[in-house]
Amino acid sequence: MSEVMKIGIAGVGTVGAETIRVLKENAALLTARTGRPIEVVAVSARYRGRDRGVDLSEIDWVDNALDLAARDDIEVVVELIGGSEGIAKDLVEAALGAGKSVVTANKALVAHHGAALGRTAEKHDVVLAYESAVAGGIPIIKTLREGLSANRVERVYGILNGTCNYILTVMRETGRPFADVLVDAQELGYAEADPAFDIDGVDAAHKLAILSAIAFGSEIDFDAVDIEGIRHVSPIDLEFAEELGYRIKLLGIAERTASGVQQRVRPCMVPKAAQIAQVDGVFNAVAAEGSSVGSTLSYGRGAGGGPTASAVIADLVDIGAGRRTPVFGVPGSALKVSAAAPIDSLVGSYYLRLTVFDRPGVLADLTAVFRDEQVSVEAMIQRGRDPNELVPVVLITHETEEAAIRRSVTKINKLRSVTEEPRILRIEAI
Amino acid sequence: MSEVMKIGIAGVGTVGAETIRVLKENAALLTARTGRPIEVVAVSARYRGRDRGVDLSEIDWVDNALDLAARDDIEVVVELIGGSEGIAKDLVEAALGAGKSVVTANKALVAHHGAALGRTAEKHDVVLAYESAVAGGIPIIKTLREGLSANRVERVYGILNGTCNYILTVMRETGRPFADVLVDAQELGYAEADPAFDIDGVDAAHKLAILSAIAFGSEIDFDAVDIEGIRHVSPIDLEFAEELGYRIKLLGIAERTASGVQQRVRPCMVPKAAQIAQVDGVFNAVAAEGSSVGSTLSYGRGAGGGPTASAVIADLVDIGAGRRTPVFGVPGSALKVSAAAPIDSLVGSYYLRLTVFDRPGVLADLTAVFRDEQVSVEAMIQRGRDPNELVPVVLITHETEEAAIRRSVTKINKLRSVTEEPRILRIEAI
Repeated sequence: MSEVMKIGIAGVGTVGAETIRVLKENAALLTARTGRPIEVVAVSARYRGRDRGVDLSEIDWVDNALDLAARDDIEVVVELIGGSEGIAKDLVEAALGAGKSVVTANKALVAHHGAALGRTAEKHDVVLAYESAVAGGIPIIKTLREGLSANRVERVYGILNGTCNYILTVMRETGRPFADVLVDAQELGYAEADPAFDIDGVDAAHKLAILSAIAFGSEIDFDAVDIEGIRHVSPIDLEFAEELGYRIKLLGIAERTASGVQQRVRPCMVPKAAQIAQVDGVFNAVAAEGSSVGSTLSYGRGAGGGPTASAVIADLVDIGAGRRTPVFGVPGSALKVSAAAPIDSLVGSYYLRLTVFDRPGVLADLTAVFRDEQVSVEAMIQRGRDPNELVPVVLITHETEEAAIRRSVTKINKLRSVTEEPRILRIEAI
Repeated sequence: MSEVMKIGIAGVGTVGAETIRVLKENAALLTARTGRPIEVVAVSARYRGRDRGVDLSEIDWVDNALDLAARDDIEVVVELIGGSEGIAKDLVEAALGAGKSVVTANKALVAHHGAALGRTAEKHDVVLAYESAVAGGIPIIKTLREGLSANRVERVYGILNGTCNYILTVMRETGRPFADVLVDAQELGYAEADPAFDIDGVDAAHKLAILSAIAFGSEIDFDAVDIEGIRHVSPIDLEFAEELGYRIKLLGIAERTASGVQQRVRPCMVPKAAQIAQVDGVFNAVAAEGSSVGSTLSYGRGAGGGPTASAVIADLVDIGAGRRTPVFGVPGSALKVSAAAPIDSLVGSYYLRLTVFDRPGVLADLTAVFRDEQVSVEAMIQRGRDPNELVPVVLITHETEEAAIRRSVTKINKLRSVTEEPRILRIEAI
C-alpha cells in the first residue's frame, strides 16, 4: 500500500485547480492520512493556455479526456467536467469499465445515471465516489452511508443550493425583489450567467435524489422529484413569514410515507427556531432523522473551490487508504425500487397568499371555497383596508391534504375578486 | 467477508441493551451495509438478574468481562463499562493484545490512555474505535478523520456536554439559579446523582482532548486542557449576556496558536447569531474550521441509549466492512507532541461582572486598575443605583491578553468596595 496512487483529473476549473493545489500543499499530511502518496500525473481540460493559478508543468496534458481512462499508470480518474451526458458520462463509463476508480463532483451525472454507473463500478470492483456532488464541503455522503449506518432513516432534508439560500437571505434582510437580488448574486459569482438550474430547483433536486437513494436504500429516481424553484417568492411572502414566526427556505425533502418515498424541492416555511432556519447566505445544511440517532444536522459551505476540493480529496484519501463502501450504501442487488409517493397525498399546514379587491363579499366567497373543500383555516391576515383596491389576504390552514389545497386554489382563481395567481407555501413540520 | 462477525459486549446498561436490540431489529439492513452479519455471542455485566428489556437468552453470559478478550470466537470486543482505569482498561488492553478489535464508548479511557492503546492496536493490526465516546450520535470522529481529511484544521470547538447545555438553557429561559435547575436535571435523568464530572467540565474535557488529538495530529494530552465548569454561572450573567447580544455556552475549544495547541473547556459568551449559540437543551454540536472547507458544524444528540448505540454500531459496521482508519487519523509514528499553549497568552474580549458598593469613587478605583494593566474598556453597564447598596457593574473589554485580565481581577479583589469574587467570561470570536 505504500506505492504512489496516481490520478488523472478531467476538468481544471476552480475546483480542479484547487484540488491540484491542495494535494501539493498538504502532500505530507495527506500521505500520512492515506498511507501512501497521491500524485496527479495527467490532466485534461478544454483550453490549454489558460492561467489556472497552479503549476501544471510537471503534469501530463491530455487533449482528449477519454484518454485518461485508457492510461495504464492511472489508478483513479477525477471527473470535474460536469453535465449528465456527453464527455463526462463517456469518461466515467470508460474509466469504470477499465477497472479504474472514479471520483466525481457531477451531481447531474449521478442523479441521472448513478444506478447504472454504480452497477458498473461494482462489477469491476472499483469505487465510484461522489462526496463533492452534494453539499460541497459537508461530508454528508459519508455521514449517511457510514456514520449513520445503524439507522433506518425516516427523513432527510436540507438547504442544498447556496445560490437560492443567498438570494432568499438577502431578500429577507433587505426587502428587495427576487430579480434584483439575482443580478447581485450573479455579479458576486454566487449565481451563474444562466441561473435556471439553480433558481428553478434542478440542482437541489439532483442532490436530493442522491441523498434519497442512500437514505432509503433505493434506486436513484430523479424523475420522481417534485420540483419548484424560488422565482415566485416575493418580498411580501418573506415579510408575512417573519410576522408569523417562520422563515422561507428552498428545501429538498425526501421522506418515507405510507405510499412510498416522497421527494420534493420547494420553497417552504420552517419555524424560525428550527436549526435549519438559522442557515443563511451561501451555506448549506443537511438534516437526517434516524431511528436510533434522532435528529442530526450537518452545516457548511456547499460550493466553491475550497469546500468542493475538500470533498474530492476526502474521496481520494478513502480510495487510497482502501476504505470501500457500496456506492449507495448497500450492494446494488439490495437496492429497492421504492414507489414514488404522489405529492397530492402530502398532509400538512399551508400558507396561502391571495391578492383580492377589497370589496364586500370577498371573504365570504373565499371561506365558502375552503368550506366546500373541507380545508380548515387556522389564521387569516388581511393587511390594510383600501376599498376597491388590491390587498393581500394571507391564510394559514390547519392540517389538510395538498390535493384539497390545489382544488381550493383552482376554484379561488375563478373568483372575480381574485386578480393574481394565489401563492402557496407548505409549512414544513421540522 | 461473508462469514459472521462475532462480537462480545462488556457492560449491558442502557447503551449495551440498545446496541443489542438494534443489531437484532435492523439485522438485515446491517448485513447489507456491512457485507456480513454481526452477531452478539457473549455479554458480561455486573448484575446478571436485572431485566434489561432485551432478550439475552441466546447470548452467552460471561461473569468476568476479561474472558471476552480470551474467547477465540470473538472478533470484536465492545467495551461499555466506563472509567479510565480498572476493568475497562484491563479489558481493552487484553482484547487488543489478543488481536481483537475494540469498540468503546469510554471517553475517560481514551482521553487518559488513548495514545498507548492506539499504539497497541496498531502493533496488533486491529481497530480501536471510539465514535461513541464523543458527542454521542454525531459522527464527528469520522467527520474529522475521514470527511475533512483534506484539511489542516485550525480550530475545533463544541458543546460537548448535554447536561451542562440543558442546565444553561433552562437557566436562561426561566431565570432560575444553577442549583435548582441541576436538581431538575437529575430528576429528568439528564444529570447523574454525582454530577461533578459533567458540571465541572471534566466530561467535556475528555471529549475535547480526543477531538484535539485528531484535529491536530498530536498525541492526546488531557492534562493540558484548562477546565472550568458551570457551577459559578449565575442567572444575572445569562441576563446580561442576552442584553449584550450573546449566549453563554460551555464550550470545549482546541485551537492552533503561535505557541502551540490551546485546549480549554469554559463557560463563555458567543454571539447570539452564531450557529452554535442556537444549540439548546441536551443537544451537542461540534464545529471544525478547516483550511479548505472553512466553517462546518455537526449537530445532534450527544447522549442517551439510541444515539450512543448508533455510534457503537457504526463502528462495528466499519470494522465488519473492512474500513480502517489510523486511530487518531495518522499512524502513531506520525503523531506530534504539540506544545501546550498557556491560557494566559490568549487574546480576546472579556466580560467582567463585579459586585460593588454603590458609593463615590468606586468607578474611579476600577478604571484606575484597568488603566494600569492597559486593559481598554469597550462598554460598561451599571444596573440600578442604590447608594451604599450592592450593585452589579459589568464591563466588556477590548481585545486584551487573558493575563492582564487576571492581574486586573487580583487587584480589583483587594478594593474595599468590591464584595464578591469578580466573574470573568471570555467572549469567543466565533
